[in-house]
Amino acid sequence: MKKAEPFGLKNGFAWGDRVHPTIGKRGKNMSEYRVAILGATGAVGQEMIKILEEYDFPTKELIPLASKRSVGKTLRYKGENFTIKEANEGAFEHADIVLGAAENDVAEAFASHIVKAGAVFIDNSSAFRLKEDVPLVVPEINGEDAKTHRGIIANPNCSTIITLMAVAPIARISPIEKMVASTYQAVSGAGVGGIRDLESQVSAYVKGEELLNGTFPYPIAFNLIPCIGGVQENGYTSEEMKLQNEGRKILHLPKMKVSCTCVRVPVLRSHSISVNIVTERKVSAAEARDALERSPGVILADRTAQNVYPMPLHASGADAVHVGRIREDLSEERGLSLFCCGDQLRKGAAANAVQIAQLLVGQ
Amino acid sequence: MKKAEPFGLKNGFAWGDRVHPTIGKRGKNMSEYRVAILGATGAVGQEMIKILEEYDFPTKELIPLASKRSVGKTLRYKGENFTIKEANEGAFEHADIVLGAAENDVAEAFASHIVKAGAVFIDNSSAFRLKEDVPLVVPEINGEDAKTHRGIIANPNCSTIITLMAVAPIARISPIEKMVASTYQAVSGAGVGGIRDLESQVSAYVKGEELLNGTFPYPIAFNLIPCIGGVQENGYTSEEMKLQNEGRKILHLPKMKVSCTCVRVPVLRSHSISVNIVTERKVSAAEARDALERSPGVILADRTAQNVYPMPLHASGADAVHVGRIREDLSEERGLSLFCCGDQLRKGAAANAVQIAQLLVGQ
Repeated sequence: MKKAEPFGLKNGFAWGDRVHPTIGKRGKNMSEYRVAILGATGAVGQEMIKILEEYDFPTKELIPLASKRSVGKTLRYKGENFTIKEANEGAFEHADIVLGAAENDVAEAFASHIVKAGAVFIDNSSAFRLKEDVPLVVPEINGEDAKTHRGIIANPNCSTIITLMAVAPIARISPIEKMVASTYQAVSGAGVGGIRDLESQVSAYVKGEELLNGTFPYPIAFNLIPCIGGVQENGYTSEEMKLQNEGRKILHLPKMKVSCTCVRVPVLRSHSISVNIVTERKVSAAEARDALERSPGVILADRTAQNVYPMPLHASGADAVHVGRIREDLSEERGLSLFCCGDQLRKGAAANAVQIAQLLVGQ
Repeated sequence: MKKAEPFGLKNGFAWGDRVHPTIGKRGKNMSEYRVAILGATGAVGQEMIKILEEYDFPTKELIPLASKRSVGKTLRYKGENFTIKEANEGAFEHADIVLGAAENDVAEAFASHIVKAGAVFIDNSSAFRLKEDVPLVVPEINGEDAKTHRGIIANPNCSTIITLMAVAPIARISPIEKMVASTYQAVSGAGVGGIRDLESQVSAYVKGEELLNGTFPYPIAFNLIPCIGGVQENGYTSEEMKLQNEGRKILHLPKMKVSCTCVRVPVLRSHSISVNIVTERKVSAAEARDALERSPGVILADRTAQNVYPMPLHASGADAVHVGRIREDLSEERGLSLFCCGDQLRKGAAANAVQIAQLLVGQ
């Protein structure tokens, strides 16, 4: 990646006049940044801290923010202890970058304070994703869009990131007209409660005890729950609509039509998606394979006869999205079918957010 | 269902001249039948015996057949003990109906002997499914086809039966042009070895031990394996092609195009399928719901906002196929999307075979 000036000033990323005024000023000539984590104790927040350290992100200070309950606890980061502070309106005063790992209401409550404080808010909630003046960014796909930010950059939905990492290289050959997707989503997508549900249920099963549910409305061990998110009037869930709504914005394909079915599966980590796309002109399986092989952030796992295909077992704990089972769709002349899998806490959430931060600071 | 004469002689099912000559003779005036189970010790064979008893099938004698290893063991059926005999060429001499629960090679080796002995072979293997003179039957969908049998009736693939139970009522409103399907298949589809793999792996996980694999090439606990069956030249697996090949024959839609992706999931029992269909004329979600509600063998589980949707948890251990998440496809004008789930050992295999036998004897 071309090295950009910190916060993408005129040279480098050349974000020019549209950059949030205070960011340019603060970002200039910086080489280390004060990074706040909004929601530092959750599954995604924890993963963000781990990834900042792993990527050796140029951090002057880590500012872990959480609700009152966790205030005063310490977190280890790059060999130093950092104390968790309360997430309140004044907490962002010294931050240069705020990584948001909180729910929509928290993101909405603090966004204006973050921007006013002159920091860039890279937010993992869905609150700002579809706002016109907020770029929605997957660095490998539309990193350039980050340049237009006005203080907030949104991190897309987890399944959306993983699916788009698999189909964007094909969309570059020929635009995608429509897509049918069925997801296989891990319990960690529902946070630590989801993981606890599955682990306690398999443990109960082994002991011959009853399977109790907590986070999900039914036991998830040895079961599937084909409903993620709230139901909308058209019968689709909010989670299912994200692939179309966010996908259109990220791929710059405002007319792309998507029908998605989201299913929770008894997998601890990594979301998988079975995808059928129809492109404007026919793209062969060989062309798609070739494009995916050359795509950063993608591992082509497509030798089915040799038992090489995407699986949570291989994708978990790393950033790459695995793509395989690439076939010409038997039901559509210009169709391709594929299966992809990625760690939704990493590339699907925390890693993508930190990669956006890297883009900003030119790391 | 209209009561037919035993083995469907001229009156009743009126199979006429096309009936296998010796079957008519033997079947005449019978009220109880000698039923052989070819492969009585496997997961499907065991389930067949259980279902024959549960349905109170009019059995004069149960003839459990297996490989040499199991010969001499006894099986309990309707309060009596039956001794397992060796499956050999002479084993079918006294049988009226043979339920096949064995692999293709076994089915192929014995089929001609069964037919010569004057029995009807209802075979669960895939050996004869696509043969022109062998009906491939799901009683609720194409029960009439059974009438044309010449000694062999094939039982379809498990995922195919479950998917077609969900879409056939819609296909009756308007023929299906194409279908995209992604499966979520339980480990019991791979027999007792599959169940053993998953159970031993979750047990190892709870104890903090390594997950060892046996039947599948990778651990299936907390994982997905997106490959079932052998890979063909077009990249699809043999299992994936069954939905198109068998679906065309059962639905009498020789041009229906199907693109299917088969995925093994860590579920013990019941296969689920996410399906998108395109019909010749638009069928609304309401019309589809109405048709499914009136379909025998189907449970409409389609109140998503009330957490009512098809799940292995609810479908396992019974015959009905659960259908829900019915939505108009956002990517296709004449498209519908739905999710279905059925017990693949029951309706997907053993129950469907016994239901074919019931059709034959007019039970």
